[in-house]
Amino acid sequence: MVQLTRRYRLSAAHRLHQETLSAAENARLYGKCNNPRGHGHDYVVEVTVEGNVDPRTGRVIDPVALDRLVEREVLERFDHKHLNLDVEDFRDCVPTTENLCLAIYDRLAGRWPAESDLAAGARLRRVRVEETRSNFFEYEGGA
Amino acid sequence: MVQLTRRYRLSAAHRLHQETLSAAENARLYGKCNNPRGHGHDYVVEVTVEGNVDPRTGRVIDPVALDRLVEREVLERFDHKHLNLDVEDFRDCVPTTENLCLAIYDRLAGRWPAESDLAAGARLRRVRVEETRSNFFEYEGGA
Amino acid sequence: MVQLTRRYRLSAAHRLHQETLSAAENARLYGKCNNPRGHGHDYVVEVTVEGNVDPRTGRVIDPVALDRLVEREVLERFDHKHLNLDVEDFRDCVPTTENLCLAIYDRLAGRWPAESDLAAGARLRRVRVEETRSNFFEYEGGA
Amino acid sequence: MVQLTRRYRLSAAHRLHQETLSAAENARLYGKCNNPRGHGHDYVVEVTVEGNVDPRTGRVIDPVALDRLVEREVLERFDHKHLNLDVEDFRDCVPTTENLCLAIYDRLAGRWPAESDLAAGARLRRVRVEETRSNFFEYEGGA
Amino acid sequence: MVQLTRRYRLSAAHRLHQETLSAAENARLYGKCNNPRGHGHDYVVEVTVEGNVDPRTGRVIDPVALDRLVEREVLERFDHKHLNLDVEDFRDCVPTTENLCLAIYDRLAGRWPAESDLAAGARLRRVRVEETRSNFFEYEGGA
Amino acid sequence: MVQLTRRYRLSAAHRLHQETLSAAENARLYGKCNNPRGHGHDYVVEVTVEGNVDPRTGRVIDPVALDRLVEREVLERFDHKHLNLDVEDFRDCVPTTENLCLAIYDRLAGRWPAESDLAAGARLRRVRVEETRSNFFEYEGGA
Repeated sequence: MVQLTRRYRLSAAHRLHQETLSAAENARLYGKCNNPRGHGHDYVVEVTVEGNVDPRTGRVIDPVALDRLVEREVLERFDHKHLNLDVEDFRDCVPTTENLCLAIYDRLAGRWPAESDLAAGARLRRVRVEETRSNFFEYEGGA
Repeated sequence: MVQLTRRYRLSAAHRLHQETLSAAENARLYGKCNNPRGHGHDYVVEVTVEGNVDPRTGRVIDPVALDRLVEREVLERFDHKHLNLDVEDFRDCVPTTENLCLAIYDRLAGRWPAESDLAAGARLRRVRVEETRSNFFEYEGGA
Repeated sequence: MVQLTRRYRLSAAHRLHQETLSAAENARLYGKCNNPRGHGHDYVVEVTVEGNVDPRTGRVIDPVALDRLVEREVLERFDHKHLNLDVEDFRDCVPTTENLCLAIYDRLAGRWPAESDLAAGARLRRVRVEETRSNFFEYEGGA
Repeated sequence: MVQLTRRYRLSAAHRLHQETLSAAENARLYGKCNNPRGHGHDYVVEVTVEGNVDPRTGRVIDPVALDRLVEREVLERFDHKHLNLDVEDFRDCVPTTENLCLAIYDRLAGRWPAESDLAAGARLRRVRVEETRSNFFEYEGGA
Repeated sequence: MVQLTRRYRLSAAHRLHQETLSAAENARLYGKCNNPRGHGHDYVVEVTVEGNVDPRTGRVIDPVALDRLVEREVLERFDHKHLNLDVEDFRDCVPTTENLCLAIYDRLAGRWPAESDLAAGARLRRVRVEETRSNFFEYEGGA
Repeated sequence: MVQLTRRYRLSAAHRLHQETLSAAENARLYGKCNNPRGHGHDYVVEVTVEGNVDPRTGRVIDPVALDRLVEREVLERFDHKHLNLDVEDFRDCVPTTENLCLAIYDRLAGRWPAESDLAAGARLRRVRVEETRSNFFEYEGGA
């Protein structure tokens, strides 16, 4: 089994704020990330797929089909958006990078079986999101 | 004369939008950067100073004093902010990275003479801002 | 005047070989870069433009127009090609990165006046090509 | 058990083309990577070894011996070559980066037991190949 | 379970030298890293923590508490130090990067249960140390 | 005129300390860089050469000759050394990165005319030293 990883970028604004907590508690918890108008990041998203190499094509997956899936499910939804205000995934959930990582994984995993042209047998292995070069997050899905 | 460059990072939200233009013209001009709620970036700011090496210290400038100046004049003003909504520099001016670069240069240049402990004779040479790894801007001031 | 730089990537094969020299001289001059079947690189191309910030748009140049020009004049010509065998610029000229840098500059400079929508008064300032992370080249044009 | 990873670079030309398919199918499958004369990449190869730290040397492996093995088995074979035309590993196999990753793993694994001076008990854990900064591949071997 | 990784930097001098071996053996084993006065590196240290996302905060861990722990246990001890001469962890142990990686892991693991404010249930998963961009080391703890 | 830049790396220990100042003044001036046993860095050194492209070779300079010069004049002298204790250039001079940059420039400039095989007419244009990714220095020589 070979793992293939492709890297995408998305720029978004967000604010870390939990509605159910007081202003003081939000400030203590999130510091300057709680700024009311929001701030932003250039997130790097890495999608890892695992499968056997198809002897006919020499590939694990059709990269164009993967890009199309990520474009439609992830980039169109999150890129150049305000995560709190524009994106339904964060209507009831703080847009930390942990939650962004889970949301991206769920979006891709939810559409995976329907993408029959991606590759026979290749599966989504992992999503990794870099918030900054010193702070990143991974989710591997699982049973 | 030796040039010293120090690199800082700031995360901010912004929206490219020119009030004096129509919605259609804004959309044509700025594309997805015109998204009403904004999006965001991790800007990299490089500040370049030029001067002679002080034979006593082996330095062009006191780096702690420079960091303090940048912290107070640039990071406190722009970092973890929404450039359009939180920052007076962009009240009448679109927060493109060109204008962010000029604003940072002006903030530093405006305070330069007062920072007598920075270094005798060292001058601000250049400000460079990376919006993303594929898009960056420089301003050298001048006569 | 603000400088704007945009970064592009192109993958190409090449062989360093000078027809007018002997095989021994080519081997001595170019070492393993003289391998007859060629080898390849992922070149990073940075195009720097210089101009005043348009107060209406906050920009030096329309980045979409610049990308379109680079796409048509540079990437379509050089990307995913064998420089010696596919590209007329290197019919009589060894495809060293020095010469690739000059060829890209000439292609852009030659089309510059005709691109009236790029930006009034902005000029091509510099082309920089990274062959590898430890080896890069710049050309500034000139009088 | 500590894992040690060392990073190497190799420049090569290749063409993605499957002899058993029609020209139209190759074009559809590989896009511009099917260009007849080839194109090229600067591949980054990471070799990961796993073992216990030898209390005498403080090391998992002799890094000079590992470099020598990679130099002889990988770099001499693939660096500054045209993968399709110069390398026997790709005589009957499309030189995708998936297959390059497997070929490098097999070359190293095939010579591993003979390198008795490498380190007692350290084993080859993983080979990772970056084709570009946005596209990379890993193989872990296995039972 | 989500993994969170934070990246820290530390600059230190070291000398690779094993007291129990002869000068000739040390020279053979460590080459120029055996230089008597030492040399130095800018190490990159990545600390990976694994846990469930707390639905209240959207976080795996309080990053400020993690930074405080790393600051106190790792950076204050190793940063801007000579590893052989200033640090007790290397009194009887060669400061290879393998051993530095183990020492950092042990320092963090030894303090982990006491940091009750870090996060309920989050555990230390892995320490990774880059000595240079071409040489890095990982330790995952164990049973 | 084309500029060619080649990048080299050197690891060294140093201590910032000025003999003619008091301990208190040294501590105030250099902070933790004044640690008595020293600390260390992986410096990145970029050497920029400027000249015309030789139409016969397509090159500004013979890169092998430049590497040989840098190896002999810079790397053998500074790499894997303690700058204060092993290197005569810093016998009477604090090994700040400003001074390291000047020392490297002087070493290269002093040998330049003697290296007749480098390239007819190519001149040393600039030396740039990165101490860390957030702190770098340039010297252009000059009249």
